Amino acid sequence: MTMEYATPYRRASRIPADPGKPYFIEKGEGDRAHLFGDLITIYAGGEQSENTFNFFTVEGPKGNLIPAHLHPDTYEVFYVTAGAVRLFVEDTEGNQQEKLLTPGDFGFVPKNCPHAYRMERHHSQVVGVAAGPGGTFERFFENLGAPADQLGLPVEPVVPEPHKFATVPRQYDVRFLPDHEWRTR
Amino acid sequence: MTMEYATPYRRASRIPADPGKPYFIEKGEGDRAHLFGDLITIYAGGEQSENTFNFFTVEGPKGNLIPAHLHPDTYEVFYVTAGAVRLFVEDTEGNQQEKLLTPGDFGFVPKNCPHAYRMERHHSQVVGVAAGPGGTFERFFENLGAPADQLGLPVEPVVPEPHKFATVPRQYDVRFLPDHEWRTR
Repeated sequence: MTMEYATPYRRASRIPADPGKPYFIEKGEGDRAHLFGDLITIYAGGEQSENTFNFFTVEGPKGNLIPAHLHPDTYEVFYVTAGAVRLFVEDTEGNQQEKLLTPGDFGFVPKNCPHAYRMERHHSQVVGVAAGPGGTFERFFENLGAPADQLGLPVEPVVPEPHKFATVPRQYDVRFLPDHEWRTR
Repeated sequence: MTMEYATPYRRASRIPADPGKPYFIEKGEGDRAHLFGDLITIYAGGEQSENTFNFFTVEGPKGNLIPAHLHPDTYEVFYVTAGAVRLFVEDTEGNQQEKLLTPGDFGFVPKNCPHAYRMERHHSQVVGVAAGPGGTFERFFENLGAPADQLGLPVEPVVPEPHKFATVPRQYDVRFLPDHEWRTR
């Protein structure tokens, strides 16, 4: 039996509109969004846990560099389940680290710490939890990019219209750092 | 470079004592605990995110049935990364469901929903996030069971002393339901 629900985010979602209901979602069938070359799949939004946490995956092709950014009020987990992902992170005193994460490896980025990452193998996948006392931001991806019905990576990169960069990131606690430099190598 | 920290939980932990610091943990090197036949590995505790969420894995052998229980104030994610895990869950109206989850499949258990699970393949692994507005409970496992230094599953099952069942579960928002029955099959 496969249940689908109408929610504020999708006409047909596997995530129940009633946040008190238990549910299962098979691999890939969460709420999907495309942003640049990546597929983001949301399995639980903030609504499911009284805005405590969310749970999503990011899949992308090799070579996709996510630009440096930080979250003033959000803590973020990077847990790699496929491929290889290089995570760059800077603490609030300016000390920088980078590490190549392979399946089972974990990275933690506190609020206010600049970070970036690059998929270093095709078919890489990262599990993300991104939340803080102020809530969760899982709908960032579909608002800067676009919701997706189909399974799989975008056929063509979804490049946001320029005006979106002025409004959407701030709304979801994202600050891009266009002049940031990584000195780790 | 591998950093180890003295924390309230371990003499040598990969989780920084200072919660504002970014960090990496390689597969298996989080704070480990044994409970019955299972290995629990904590990669982030509540301290890391101002008590918003935690992140841990549970690995176990085939056949290990975790008894029915609920959490009055905690929401819980079951995300399978290896093997196969059968998740049983009941909503607050008494409707029961079960599903065999394989890698990439997701289950969500809201607060107050009775649930149980069984590893159905050796070397199964579940990623867990367990948190709610009242905090997180990742230290339940090592307090009912025992902290572990070594890697891998317990050589002998770690069976809690009976008196611990009277105090530890309530302290970590766990209510066991010894008379609960699953009618799903």
